Amino acid sequence: MNPAGLQHYSPQGLFDTDGLHLVIAGRRLVDIVEDLGCTPVYVYSRDVISRRIQALKSRLPPQVRLHYAVKANPMPEVVNHVATLVDGLDVASGRELSTALLSGMQPADISFAGPGKSQWELTESLAAGITLNVESETEFERIVRISRTLNKTANVALRINPDFELRASGVKASGGAQPFGVDAETAPGLLEKIAASDAKFAGFQIFSGSQTLRAEALIEAQAKTFALARQLSQHAGLPVRKLNIGGGFGIPYFPGDAPLVLTPVIENLNALLAQYRKEFATTEVILELGRYLVGEAGLYVTRIIDRKVSRGSTYLITDGGLNHHLAASGNFGQAVRRNYPVTIGNRLGEPAEKVSVVGPLCTPLDILAKNMDLPRADIGDLVVVFQSGAYGYTASPLNFLSHPEPKEYLA
Amino acid sequence: MNPAGLQHYSPQGLFDTDGLHLVIAGRRLVDIVEDLGCTPVYVYSRDVISRRIQALKSRLPPQVRLHYAVKANPMPEVVNHVATLVDGLDVASGRELSTALLSGMQPADISFAGPGKSQWELTESLAAGITLNVESETEFERIVRISRTLNKTANVALRINPDFELRASGVKASGGAQPFGVDAETAPGLLEKIAASDAKFAGFQIFSGSQTLRAEALIEAQAKTFALARQLSQHAGLPVRKLNIGGGFGIPYFPGDAPLVLTPVIENLNALLAQYRKEFATTEVILELGRYLVGEAGLYVTRIIDRKVSRGSTYLITDGGLNHHLAASGNFGQAVRRNYPVTIGNRLGEPAEKVSVVGPLCTPLDILAKNMDLPRADIGDLVVVFQSGAYGYTASPLNFLSHPEPKEYLA
Repeated sequence: MNPAGLQHYSPQGLFDTDGLHLVIAGRRLVDIVEDLGCTPVYVYSRDVISRRIQALKSRLPPQVRLHYAVKANPMPEVVNHVATLVDGLDVASGRELSTALLSGMQPADISFAGPGKSQWELTESLAAGITLNVESETEFERIVRISRTLNKTANVALRINPDFELRASGVKASGGAQPFGVDAETAPGLLEKIAASDAKFAGFQIFSGSQTLRAEALIEAQAKTFALARQLSQHAGLPVRKLNIGGGFGIPYFPGDAPLVLTPVIENLNALLAQYRKEFATTEVILELGRYLVGEAGLYVTRIIDRKVSRGSTYLITDGGLNHHLAASGNFGQAVRRNYPVTIGNRLGEPAEKVSVVGPLCTPLDILAKNMDLPRADIGDLVVVFQSGAYGYTASPLNFLSHPEPKEYLA
Repeated sequence: MNPAGLQHYSPQGLFDTDGLHLVIAGRRLVDIVEDLGCTPVYVYSRDVISRRIQALKSRLPPQVRLHYAVKANPMPEVVNHVATLVDGLDVASGRELSTALLSGMQPADISFAGPGKSQWELTESLAAGITLNVESETEFERIVRISRTLNKTANVALRINPDFELRASGVKASGGAQPFGVDAETAPGLLEKIAASDAKFAGFQIFSGSQTLRAEALIEAQAKTFALARQLSQHAGLPVRKLNIGGGFGIPYFPGDAPLVLTPVIENLNALLAQYRKEFATTEVILELGRYLVGEAGLYVTRIIDRKVSRGSTYLITDGGLNHHLAASGNFGQAVRRNYPVTIGNRLGEPAEKVSVVGPLCTPLDILAKNMDLPRADIGDLVVVFQSGAYGYTASPLNFLSHPEPKEYLA
């Protein structure tokens, strides 16, 4: 076990420690929680987010622009902070669009993708002048109608469902039949309609999947993405101003997960830009990342309310669980439950014991850690779940059993 | 396919139809939705709830009191309605307790179970005079302290973790090590402490699991529950005023599920009451049900925003999905995704076609129906998910991708 009391994850380089204490933004977690006056809370580190983004940007080719997928963590303070560090924001709903616009990001650097955009969302997008990633011919027709009503020029990119997928990824969203975007082979017809319309053509979004830790899978998908983009651009008969190649960079969650190695991915991007410099010399190549930028910067913190032994097993019972952090409980689409990295935030380095951490809900699904070696903890101590900066708060059934919502805090 | 256009579920006896239309409370679903002015919406039928409860109560032995587990559906209008039909309410959080108290149910007929009750929840419970189901010795000590501070008598029942489980159930919450309640074999020690305290002993809660469709599993668990209660009551040296035997009655969701057959369960309850009439002649035997009372009375209704064909597969894209109804998307702890019963609420009996219904989210997890035979539907039509009256709205990640919340309506 490493000094932070973690079995399979080291927050080294992300979070500091001070004796028994986890430290965030120069302060002990217990003091942050004491000042907030309540648990449970999601704590996000401004500094960890900044360092992650700056480290990535410093290595990206200048032609590649880094966008943040707001859905990963739409807390307004987080979005405002990230907006100062990236080149654009990508949204998936009208409320995310409002947050993006309030961050001060220019509408020209905001895009909206989603297979079922509502009338309100299309109208808000056209009024704001952002780029709409078109998901179907029907949707394009609606966009044209609304843009005429508003007397606004529509900025449209075409979302493509490619004929390949991102291998070894947690979430596959391409290849075969999909509700997302337009099948690559039928895109030429819609491109002709766009060319013949009043809409301004921005380019393509080609998204193949997310959450992979394997560089070679990303390299393969990016190479296929550029090839497909070139093929489609020949049909477009229009300059491709933007080419959103998706993201897909994963973060490690479970025992055995190794962090993504960036070097080959960056080298491949440089090679692709050289290879396609004729076709895409003036194209903004957009890398869209969510989880990778903010996921490791967040902690879910919950307090121990009770400690009990049942038939030889020790349970720590906390004031939040599945209702606040569904993915960590193993119930969000996971076939097999595995423990997220967990520790006791004010007992680092104490002798370990095998315990299970469960939330306050009357359901056996409510587990944050199952049979883990954790520092010996008691009532009042703080259970910390790492890797909780993305798809934590918003991806959880907060009203389940009607407990109080957790707070969110950007430290 | 039956006339309602459903592959593996018949709402016959629950919902009426009128030509192409599903009818709730005497009105076409399309008209209800038109008046509400928005989708998506959960629609609950007051009448279906009433009929379910009355049918069950008319068959229960007079000594058995029917309680409603508020967590199944805590919408205040639903709780207020159910409260007029049942003998008590059981809650799992402070907010559920507030809802229960506002329904007009007497505090003597309200109980609170949950392994991690907060200071606020214990205080609110003691101030209101409800029954607290004690989950651990530590919790009992906290209850005694707070009751002294408030100068209120604590009404405590002991929640028991039995040494058996409910077989063939969707949710097992007993047998082996558990965070719930006190292990049966260690209960006598805590019973002595309760007897020696100022607290008023109410009895036992013995809950072994939920969502079973097999009568023989319930019969076995109930027999073991009575036997355990007798054994424990001999240690109590105190009258057992209340014996909460849990619930566990399931409802059918998936192809091949047959509804629970009540007759043998009722007969078994009568036999057990006769067998234990000496020990429990004056005991309130409480049957605590949630899902069984309200689950079949609810529909999730979402509107089709787009219709598209991708590589031979037809997709209906709706304005709500996984974010509003996680269980129907197959992502709430299910190892294998199966379709809930789904239809098109304004196209009943139209010729069927094979389609998938997906929500508006940018994730391949967002599926409401996969390759189902549904009546031919188009943009604007209403997709209906049956069996959505319990653990729908509150068990879903409403903020996921920041779309508008669904409404709830008791028709």
